[in-house]
Amino acid sequence: MTIALYPGSFDPVTNGHLDIIKRALVLFDKLVIGVYDRPDKRLLFNTAERVALIKGATKGLNNVSVRSYSELTVHFARKVGAKVMVRGLRMSSDFEHEFELAMMNRKLAPDIELVCMMSSIQYQFLSSSLLKEAASLGGCIDDLVPPNVAKALLAKLGTRA
Amino acid sequence: MTIALYPGSFDPVTNGHLDIIKRALVLFDKLVIGVYDRPDKRLLFNTAERVALIKGATKGLNNVSVRSYSELTVHFARKVGAKVMVRGLRMSSDFEHEFELAMMNRKLAPDIELVCMMSSIQYQFLSSSLLKEAASLGGCIDDLVPPNVAKALLAKLGTRA
Amino acid sequence: MTIALYPGSFDPVTNGHLDIIKRALVLFDKLVIGVYDRPDKRLLFNTAERVALIKGATKGLNNVSVRSYSELTVHFARKVGAKVMVRGLRMSSDFEHEFELAMMNRKLAPDIELVCMMSSIQYQFLSSSLLKEAASLGGCIDDLVPPNVAKALLAKLGTRA
Amino acid sequence: MTIALYPGSFDPVTNGHLDIIKRALVLFDKLVIGVYDRPDKRLLFNTAERVALIKGATKGLNNVSVRSYSELTVHFARKVGAKVMVRGLRMSSDFEHEFELAMMNRKLAPDIELVCMMSSIQYQFLSSSLLKEAASLGGCIDDLVPPNVAKALLAKLGTRA
Amino acid sequence: MTIALYPGSFDPVTNGHLDIIKRALVLFDKLVIGVYDRPDKRLLFNTAERVALIKGATKGLNNVSVRSYSELTVHFARKVGAKVMVRGLRMSSDFEHEFELAMMNRKLAPDIELVCMMSSIQYQFLSSSLLKEAASLGGCIDDLVPPNVAKALLAKLGTRA
Amino acid sequence: MTIALYPGSFDPVTNGHLDIIKRALVLFDKLVIGVYDRPDKRLLFNTAERVALIKGATKGLNNVSVRSYSELTVHFARKVGAKVMVRGLRMSSDFEHEFELAMMNRKLAPDIELVCMMSSIQYQFLSSSLLKEAASLGGCIDDLVPPNVAKALLAKLGTRA
Repeated sequence: MTIALYPGSFDPVTNGHLDIIKRALVLFDKLVIGVYDRPDKRLLFNTAERVALIKGATKGLNNVSVRSYSELTVHFARKVGAKVMVRGLRMSSDFEHEFELAMMNRKLAPDIELVCMMSSIQYQFLSSSLLKEAASLGGCIDDLVPPNVAKALLAKLGTRA
Repeated sequence: MTIALYPGSFDPVTNGHLDIIKRALVLFDKLVIGVYDRPDKRLLFNTAERVALIKGATKGLNNVSVRSYSELTVHFARKVGAKVMVRGLRMSSDFEHEFELAMMNRKLAPDIELVCMMSSIQYQFLSSSLLKEAASLGGCIDDLVPPNVAKALLAKLGTRA
Repeated sequence: MTIALYPGSFDPVTNGHLDIIKRALVLFDKLVIGVYDRPDKRLLFNTAERVALIKGATKGLNNVSVRSYSELTVHFARKVGAKVMVRGLRMSSDFEHEFELAMMNRKLAPDIELVCMMSSIQYQFLSSSLLKEAASLGGCIDDLVPPNVAKALLAKLGTRA
Repeated sequence: MTIALYPGSFDPVTNGHLDIIKRALVLFDKLVIGVYDRPDKRLLFNTAERVALIKGATKGLNNVSVRSYSELTVHFARKVGAKVMVRGLRMSSDFEHEFELAMMNRKLAPDIELVCMMSSIQYQFLSSSLLKEAASLGGCIDDLVPPNVAKALLAKLGTRA
Repeated sequence: MTIALYPGSFDPVTNGHLDIIKRALVLFDKLVIGVYDRPDKRLLFNTAERVALIKGATKGLNNVSVRSYSELTVHFARKVGAKVMVRGLRMSSDFEHEFELAMMNRKLAPDIELVCMMSSIQYQFLSSSLLKEAASLGGCIDDLVPPNVAKALLAKLGTRA
Repeated sequence: MTIALYPGSFDPVTNGHLDIIKRALVLFDKLVIGVYDRPDKRLLFNTAERVALIKGATKGLNNVSVRSYSELTVHFARKVGAKVMVRGLRMSSDFEHEFELAMMNRKLAPDIELVCMMSSIQYQFLSSSLLKEAASLGGCIDDLVPPNVAKALLAKLGTRA
């Protein structure tokens, strides 16, 4: 059985993330979604909220679990028994940073493999940061996020165009 | 009559921005320069100062107006009657971010078109942030900005090489 | 009145090109589509065919004309009275080459302006060369090209998946 | 059981390809290496030779088969029962082209998934074309290719530094 | 005699920096390592610490001196008699920013030349920021930094996997 | 004494190449310009012509010699006693290919160092291929090449705008 880890900040989870989650589930037996509990970055949602939003958005899916972590990502991968980590690649990804991360991870844990999966074309340009900026200014982002996230964004940002 | 919006932070306006402004005026009937009044970013000049500096620098030009805004850029475009937004593209632009922005904007307001214009070769490497860093350390930046901006930078940073 | 030139090889015209054509028509009064008659590159359709395919695909559009040319693109722009040239920019464009071209054109003809317009998201990854390769191997490319081009590709390549 | 297809030209197979092959075998149950039989590109080794070189280089590996194909890659994937295709990503990859290919493939066959795996750091800069150029001029390329390929290159190019 | 300046933040110096230092010493007669004393950026080590770490790591090397500076880099280059500045280039460098910096520097001081040297393949993906993140989470980074830096990181971050 | 090799196709030499040549001469004692005698690429000028054009364009410069070569570039570097090779870097360079080349060269000859120098801003977008295309269509390229090259291009291409 192949367990895969899909790590990230997910602040908040978007339809682009859900697209990758569904694609990864076709290939691997079990998917652990790891929410990085980083203290030093200004995030809109706290760790518990981010975990809850993903849980809400993936309710219908089998073989998915959601957990937060605060150690090195590769160490968390080992802890959950994952031998592979999944990254979503968008055209507008910072590939250089992706490679730096990948090579550093492989150095720290050569036993953990990495696979990149490409987002669907309609989510190729969707980033969480741009989404939050648009939402905070009242832009309609309803079909870019799951309904529970749209609701949470509205509650958190208190605005509607 | 085609009204175009040229939005940005303009902290401060440079000769590279003026180059784009003059090019855009050849193509469109009226150009609104929109100064984004963003609260959450450390800028050197406040919004009123940035507007004043552009007004000073564009004094001789017809069909130009300068306004600040704090809503979604595409909403401001609609408010001023612009059907097109202008972006200056430099070789050192972050193209990926440009595309993310463009696609998000089109999603939020499909009626607003975007055109990118390329800076003249001598301004291809001129960014406001690098300019401010150089100026703050006493570098001579006189032919990179209009005279009123050079004077304002000197007053604000209190330094001269 | 602003005349714009949209130059290219158009071998063949795709829905991505048509998207740019329609966008450009919103901004400019008249659009000349210039089909570059280059002798030294292996193209699938000859110049007359490429012109005919664009004419067929733009039949319903006003203010559009299609012409072939073999001189320097900026010289052709002057000949047709265009003061601006339009380029479609895709995320997968070779930006470096775009800049080289733009700077060379500006050197050769500083009076001709260039604007770049961004393709719709569904055409961001559509290139004529990939399209031809897919079509030649029997891939279904029906909603990537106008119907007359789909028919021409089928006739030329004699294949269907 | 998950069958994966690893398609390419493999002209010739390098240690970088073998690295990806071994990584993919950790994740998938069976790996089909598909050698694209393209007629219209000048290759150093013909299709039969390329297949034989990979067979020689993967002799010790289980769950690997090598086949040539000439149809659309996604059609070949379906034919061999693969639901996923593997691509090796190097830092010096043409990411734009990778995305064009991926989006076109998904359009032609939405049922076939794509995963990208990253080469080990020592093969990040190894391309078949550079390898052939170096070998043809007598450069020592012994630890960049498997022994049977080194021998074949020497025989084909008849040179040694 | 050609004096070269190798400027940077060096927070902390890594084996990648040492690689460039040794390469530069082959080409130039004397190398000044300039540690930029920037007040406004959150660094892990203060300027005195960063200078001391480089001094410790370059102890065995001739023709090297280490100095901090707070003026414009090109002004510091002139002060130490350097006619050339050295930059290490990694595949994951931000080339656009490198060019912006280079062109700005040349404008501010046309008499100072710039050369870029490429890191060895094993350090192509090593950045100080990623190193610090890995170290802070207990990743083993022993062969990425000189021993005195490994010790200092451990003391500063108080962690070990 | 440091001898540097500046290798390339130089088809033909441009003012951008001359800019790099003059910069390199500030840093190194002697510069050998190596004209690669490649048989399998369609070039406009043959090897003897390319050597002669560089000789004509560098007539006034000391410590420069021009030679053709057909072996591996690093082997030629050793033959002429160069311990360093110079590459001109333009913003529109194919950095990925530069890195592939550099890493392959270092593998083949670890004793040969590589330095990259950046072109002046006015030549950042000047490539030999674009120059030839413009010249062949009658574009005025007089200030992009030395006078002897302008004359040779006119004679070879027999055209003038």
